[in-house]
Amino acid sequence: MTTSATGENCIRSLPFINKSVAVITVSDRGARGEREDRSGQVVAEQLESQGYLVAARSIVPDEIPEIRRLLCRYSDQDKLGLVITTGGTGVSPRDVTPEATLAVVERIVPGMAEAMRAASLGKTVHAMMSRAVVGVRGATLIVNLPGSPKAALENLAVLLPALPHALEKIQGETSDCAKLRTHASPSEP
Amino acid sequence: MTTSATGENCIRSLPFINKSVAVITVSDRGARGEREDRSGQVVAEQLESQGYLVAARSIVPDEIPEIRRLLCRYSDQDKLGLVITTGGTGVSPRDVTPEATLAVVERIVPGMAEAMRAASLGKTVHAMMSRAVVGVRGATLIVNLPGSPKAALENLAVLLPALPHALEKIQGETSDCAKLRTHASPSEP
Amino acid sequence: MTTSATGENCIRSLPFINKSVAVITVSDRGARGEREDRSGQVVAEQLESQGYLVAARSIVPDEIPEIRRLLCRYSDQDKLGLVITTGGTGVSPRDVTPEATLAVVERIVPGMAEAMRAASLGKTVHAMMSRAVVGVRGATLIVNLPGSPKAALENLAVLLPALPHALEKIQGETSDCAKLRTHASPSEP
Repeated sequence: MTTSATGENCIRSLPFINKSVAVITVSDRGARGEREDRSGQVVAEQLESQGYLVAARSIVPDEIPEIRRLLCRYSDQDKLGLVITTGGTGVSPRDVTPEATLAVVERIVPGMAEAMRAASLGKTVHAMMSRAVVGVRGATLIVNLPGSPKAALENLAVLLPALPHALEKIQGETSDCAKLRTHASPSEP
Repeated sequence: MTTSATGENCIRSLPFINKSVAVITVSDRGARGEREDRSGQVVAEQLESQGYLVAARSIVPDEIPEIRRLLCRYSDQDKLGLVITTGGTGVSPRDVTPEATLAVVERIVPGMAEAMRAASLGKTVHAMMSRAVVGVRGATLIVNLPGSPKAALENLAVLLPALPHALEKIQGETSDCAKLRTHASPSEP
Repeated sequence: MTTSATGENCIRSLPFINKSVAVITVSDRGARGEREDRSGQVVAEQLESQGYLVAARSIVPDEIPEIRRLLCRYSDQDKLGLVITTGGTGVSPRDVTPEATLAVVERIVPGMAEAMRAASLGKTVHAMMSRAVVGVRGATLIVNLPGSPKAALENLAVLLPALPHALEKIQGETSDCAKLRTHASPSEP
């Protein structure tokens, strides 16, 4: 127990990491039930095998308002630590997942998107067409993955080694002491 | 022939790719006729050797309104599949091609710009100063290349293997059925 | 001596490069005097060993208004050639240096940030969490570096070989002839 500069008692949070995850499949055909959601399935399985708790899975059409609404619900209301989307990151006219994501994140993390593309580019030139965005909304990390199961898993694998530390940092100030964060800043880099 | 959800008959487009291109040289001196437009020339030749049809070439000064106007005309009016600029991507005070491009594209394709810079960085540290942007406006891909003939060709070579598939995806919904794209989405990734 | 198109006499600037630098440490704890400013120190030393003149050093808390104010002062008022920040580039809730930088730069230089991250990624996966921004305000290059001394120096080392040419280009039009830049454009790429 520490005493803050303002005199309030405050229990410092243990380094608990919120590893609850939502996986959103963005696909017109998937949302109409015309295509099996294999990407969402394999991404969820991979996350669970790495110790994440998949708390929700959804399928939405490639519509910015619907994607935005889900991203905000999982971040603001359900307070999940991580939201992963799969699909809608390409250059087809209906691909708008990056735009929906940019509209809701408060801070972008371009290095994670760059790292995914750079790794994928070693496998296929088409990786340069992924417009995936990674960003932070509140205490939630939002990650776009491509729509094909293979590409989604390959991209996720690039992030996995960095995710625990990233989530810990993002959640650094969400303890009961968060309101005192001007005075106590344990997660400063 | 398929029947759309709204009952209209609609011929699905064959996988025809619009490979018509405009090459815009952005250069104050070029626009004043003080410098030969070698970059535009070599870029156009390289594109034609790869099966593209160079439908237009222009030289404009480093002025955002003039660059914007050309980008919009080639996209919206002439409906070219690809617009390539060369020049104005650096950090000199007059270099504003990226800003003009960002002002007109609806969706950016950061991976293409990253891939060009990453490849160039293996040849010269100065590649990190290229602020080139790649993005999509309507059914047109807009690509910034550097101003030197050598750098322009090197950067173009990075994109060429990915361009046919990129253009096909971008043009996925530009058939007569485009207005029905909520119902028919053949190019979903 | 050349005569401009408007008839004024104008001495073309020699290729003098303004290598004056400010180093800003962005750290809540540093600003409260609770942590020694090692990053600012090592960055300043490294710059001086490379022929830069460290004209100012500051420590500010992780607050966007304070960071913005300093960036603008060093650019607009002190007219330094380079402003380097260290700290506040991560994903912790208080990390806002990139947002403060994006708010004041007129043109971003994404390739410099990408090059730093790509090089760091070869050393640690956590490099992908750096959200560092590089951009230009007026004739000043603004560079974000991470907060740890080791990471700051590693990232700076990536830029150093490209910096002289970058600064020369950025300052290309800041001579007495700058107002004539429509007519004389010596730094065109």
